[in-house]
Amino acid sequence: MALESLKMRLLQVAGAIAPMTVNRLAIERVINACRRRPHPLSMSHDYTAWTGLSDTRWSARHLPPRNDLPANQENPSPKVEEIVQIFARRGEVRFCDKSTCLFPAFAQYLTDGFVRTKMPSDTADRLDPIRKQNTSNNQIDMCPLYGRTTEQTYALRHFSEKAGQRGRLSSQRLQTAAGEEEFPPFLFDDSGNVKPEFEALDPPLGISNLPDEMKRYIFAIGGDRANAVPSVSFMNTLFLREHNRLAGEMERAYPEWDDERVFQTARNTVIVLFIKIVVEEYINHINPRPIKFMADPTFAWTAPWNKPNWITTEFSLLYRWHSLVPEVMTFGGKAYPVQATFLNNRIVIETGLAQGFADLSAMKAARLGVFNTSDSILPRERFAIEQGRLCQLASYSDYREYCSLTRPSSFEEISTDPHVASFLKDKYGRPENVEFYTGLFAEDHVQNSPLPQLILSMVGVDAFSQAFTNPLLSEHVFKEETFSKAGWAAIQETKTIRQIVERNVPKALGDTRIAMTQADWKFQW
Amino acid sequence: MALESLKMRLLQVAGAIAPMTVNRLAIERVINACRRRPHPLSMSHDYTAWTGLSDTRWSARHLPPRNDLPANQENPSPKVEEIVQIFARRGEVRFCDKSTCLFPAFAQYLTDGFVRTKMPSDTADRLDPIRKQNTSNNQIDMCPLYGRTTEQTYALRHFSEKAGQRGRLSSQRLQTAAGEEEFPPFLFDDSGNVKPEFEALDPPLGISNLPDEMKRYIFAIGGDRANAVPSVSFMNTLFLREHNRLAGEMERAYPEWDDERVFQTARNTVIVLFIKIVVEEYINHINPRPIKFMADPTFAWTAPWNKPNWITTEFSLLYRWHSLVPEVMTFGGKAYPVQATFLNNRIVIETGLAQGFADLSAMKAARLGVFNTSDSILPRERFAIEQGRLCQLASYSDYREYCSLTRPSSFEEISTDPHVASFLKDKYGRPENVEFYTGLFAEDHVQNSPLPQLILSMVGVDAFSQAFTNPLLSEHVFKEETFSKAGWAAIQETKTIRQIVERNVPKALGDTRIAMTQADWKFQW
Repeated sequence: MALESLKMRLLQVAGAIAPMTVNRLAIERVINACRRRPHPLSMSHDYTAWTGLSDTRWSARHLPPRNDLPANQENPSPKVEEIVQIFARRGEVRFCDKSTCLFPAFAQYLTDGFVRTKMPSDTADRLDPIRKQNTSNNQIDMCPLYGRTTEQTYALRHFSEKAGQRGRLSSQRLQTAAGEEEFPPFLFDDSGNVKPEFEALDPPLGISNLPDEMKRYIFAIGGDRANAVPSVSFMNTLFLREHNRLAGEMERAYPEWDDERVFQTARNTVIVLFIKIVVEEYINHINPRPIKFMADPTFAWTAPWNKPNWITTEFSLLYRWHSLVPEVMTFGGKAYPVQATFLNNRIVIETGLAQGFADLSAMKAARLGVFNTSDSILPRERFAIEQGRLCQLASYSDYREYCSLTRPSSFEEISTDPHVASFLKDKYGRPENVEFYTGLFAEDHVQNSPLPQLILSMVGVDAFSQAFTNPLLSEHVFKEETFSKAGWAAIQETKTIRQIVERNVPKALGDTRIAMTQADWKFQW
Repeated sequence: MALESLKMRLLQVAGAIAPMTVNRLAIERVINACRRRPHPLSMSHDYTAWTGLSDTRWSARHLPPRNDLPANQENPSPKVEEIVQIFARRGEVRFCDKSTCLFPAFAQYLTDGFVRTKMPSDTADRLDPIRKQNTSNNQIDMCPLYGRTTEQTYALRHFSEKAGQRGRLSSQRLQTAAGEEEFPPFLFDDSGNVKPEFEALDPPLGISNLPDEMKRYIFAIGGDRANAVPSVSFMNTLFLREHNRLAGEMERAYPEWDDERVFQTARNTVIVLFIKIVVEEYINHINPRPIKFMADPTFAWTAPWNKPNWITTEFSLLYRWHSLVPEVMTFGGKAYPVQATFLNNRIVIETGLAQGFADLSAMKAARLGVFNTSDSILPRERFAIEQGRLCQLASYSDYREYCSLTRPSSFEEISTDPHVASFLKDKYGRPENVEFYTGLFAEDHVQNSPLPQLILSMVGVDAFSQAFTNPLLSEHVFKEETFSKAGWAAIQETKTIRQIVERNVPKALGDTRIAMTQADWKFQW
C-alpha cells in the first residue's frame, strides 16, 4: 500500500498544480473504462435492430444476453429465493464509515429522475417484460421537479388563476417547526381524488394502498417517485424553492420578460445547478482519489464519448442501493422505523427544510452491500434479481472484464468477508457463475469510497458521460445569456447542497452541517 | 480561373494518392463551414429553453429570429405575392446542364423521409404555426419505406395471414410493360376506404381531392409523401424490392432465423445501402470538386461534429427544389404534363421499374433557381416564403456569413443575371434585406454543381453531419454481424442506384443508362 499511497500523494500534487488538466485526464480515465455509446443492443432484440438503435423506450444493454449462465436458465441455479437471502440484513445495521443519509437521499433523487425503469402495475407479474422498458427522457432534466412532459410541466405551473405567474412553479406555504415555509401544492382533494388540474401528472408509485390521512400530504410534483420518502421529498422541495427564488431574481432583473421566459430561464439554471451538485458534491463524495472533480464541461464538447445518452438496464440495477437505508430515521428529534417514512410527507412538513437537511446530514448511512438490506425493502432485491434474469444479463465476471477490471478467479477475490465468500460458493459453485446483481453488492468496498469497485466504475462512466452531454452544457449554449446574469452567477458559485439550502430557508444555517460526508471522516492514505 | 483550375488538378492528384485522408479532410471542410450541433435555439422559443433543447417536435434553427428585417414585419416589404413572381417560370423551361430527373427523384425521396415539416390540414391557414414543427425521426431511417413508428412498420409487414413471413415487406405482383413485377400493396379497398390493416399509416398528403380511379393505385407504404409523383414511387418500390430480395438471401443463408430477425437484418442493410447512395452517388453528383466522396464512417466515430441530429427549419426550406421539375415528363414513351403525374401510380405500374429509371435518367432536370418553377407547383413557393417569415428567419446575407461565405455588397454579387439582380433590387432595395428563401435560389450556380453556393454549403453540412451520425454506422455497430454476410457484401459493393435496379428487375439492364448525371456532361476545369 506504500506505492498506492505515493501515487495518491502525487495525484494530489498534480491536481493542485494543474487542476483543469488533471480534471480532464481523470474524467477521461473514468469514462474510458468501457465501450462508448451508441450501444449496439437494447432490450428490444437480442441482435442489433433499428428498433433497438432508435426507440429509447427500450432500455439499452452494455453486454449481450447470455442464455448459458446457470442463473438465466428456465430452472435457474441458484433460485431467486436463495439469492435474496444474501441481501437480508443480519442482526444490527452495519453503518458506512463515510456517508451520511444525505448521500442516499441525493442518489435516489438523481436516479429516480433519470433511470426510470417501467414498473408493472401492483398486481402484475413481477417478471413482466415491461421491466425491459423505461420512461426516461435520457437527460438529467430535473423531471421529478418539472415533470416528464410539456403537459406535466404546464400543470405544475398553472394550477390556479394566481399561479403560473412570473415563472414560478405552483406552491403553497405551510407551517413547520421553523415557521412558514414553501412546499409544493397537494395532489389530492379532500375526498382523496386527484385534483383535476393535476390529472396530467404520473400517479405516485405505491399510492393505491395509502391511507387517506397520509394521502392528503402527497405533493403534486413532477416525479412519480419523488414523494416516496422524506429525504427525497426534502430534496425536491429544495429545488422547487430554488426555482422560485431564481424566478424572483430574474423577474426583478428583467421586468420586460414574460412569465414563460422567466420560467424557462430559471429552469435552465436549476438543471445546471443540479448537474454541478452531481459532479462537485456527489461524485466527489464517492471518488476514492484525493482530487476534486470540477463540472467544467468545455473539454466534453469535442470528446469522442459525447454521444446521445441511453439508459441501460445494467445501470438501472447497479443503482438499487437499498442497503444504504438504516432501520430507523430521525427527523426533528423523532425517531421513525424506516417503513413508517414511506410516502410520509407529514414528516417533511413538520420538520421543515433546514432541520430536515441537518437531520439527513447527522445520520450515518448504512453500508452498501450484501447482508444489509432492511426487511422492509427486501422484496425489492427480489425484483432486481428477477430483472437481471429476465434480461439474461451476462455474469458479474463478464462485466468486470468489460469495465477493465480483473475477472475474479476465486470467491475470496470477490469478497474478503468469509461469510460472503462462502455464501457465494455455496450458491454459485464457481466464481464465473455469479450473476451481475449479486456480484455488484458482494464485492469489497474501495478504500475511501462508499462503493464497491464495479459499481464505482459503472457509476463513474455513466455519471460523467451522461451528465456532460446535457445540451445546457454544450458548446453554444453554456454561456451567460442562456441563464441570465443571476442564473449564471448562481451556477458559478454553487458547489454544494448546503449553499442551496442556505438561500432557501427562513433562518441562517449558522454552523449546521449539511454534507454527504460524515464530519469525522478522514482520507486514508 | 487558372489558379482555381490548378487547385482542382492538385486536389484530384491528392485524392488519387491518399483517398481516405482527402475524403476525411474534404468532408470536415464541408461540415466545419458552420456551427456544430446542439443548436441553441429551436422554434419553440426565441431564447434558449429546455423545450427547445429537448423536444424534437419543434424544428431547430441555425440563426436567431430577426424581427427587424423588412420581410418579417407585420406589413412586410416586399409582400409575399410580389416575391412569388421571382420563382414563376418565364416562357420555356431552362434545363440543368448536369442533372437528369433521377437527381430530383432521389432528393425528394431522401428529404421526404427526413425533413418532414408538419403540414396544416388542407383547409387551415397557411401561416399556421404548425409549420414550426416536424414529424421527423431525425434519422435517415427509410421511413418512407418502413413507416415512422413501430406500429406502421408492423402494418406494412402483416397485412394478411400470408404476409409478414420470412422478413418480407408486404407486396403484390402486377403486370407491367416488362412482365410481372413486385409493388407495394394498394392502400384503398374497392369502395375507396383505407383498408383496415393499414389504418396505422399516415394518410397520403393531398389524397382528399383525388378521384377514385386514381385512388385505387395508391400504394400502402411508410411515407405520406412517397406516392406523390411517379419518380418517388419508383424509388420507394425499388427499395421495397431490395428489402425483400435481401430478406430472401438471408432466409436462405440463416434457416434458423425467425421472421423478425430476417426483417430487422434486411432493414439494417437497406438503411445503410441508402446512406451509401446518399454519399457516393447523390453528394458526389452535387460536389463541384474533382474528387469522389466515400461513405467511410470510421473517421466520424470520434469527430466533434458527431452530435444528435435535429432538423432545422432552414434545412426544410433550402430543400424546396420545385424548379428542378420540368413541364413535361416522359415515361414508357408517353409524355405527361407534370400536373398529370401527381399521385399517379398508374404510370409507375404501366411503365415498370427498369423503364421508369431509364426514363428518369434520360430526361434532363430543369435548372434549380429563380424564374423556373412550373405554374403547377408555384403555390408551394408561396408556402415556403410564408414559412420563412413565420419563423422570422435572418437574412440571406446573415446565412451566407454563418456559412463562412461573403456577405454580398451588391445585387450583382448575388446574381450575374441582370433580370434577377434588377428584380431583387426593385423588391428589396438593399442586398442585406434579401430574405433567406429568395436569396438561396437567386444565386448563381457553382461551376460543376447543379446547385447555387449557399444551398450547396448547407446541404453539404447537413448531409454529412446527419448521415454519418446514423447509429448503424457507429463504432460498435458498423460490422458484418449487424447486417449478415449477405447484407455486408451488398453494402460493400453498392455505390449506385443502377446496381440496385439491376438486381431487382426481370431483365438485365444491358447498356441502359441509370444515373443522376447527364451522359454528355463533362467536368469544367
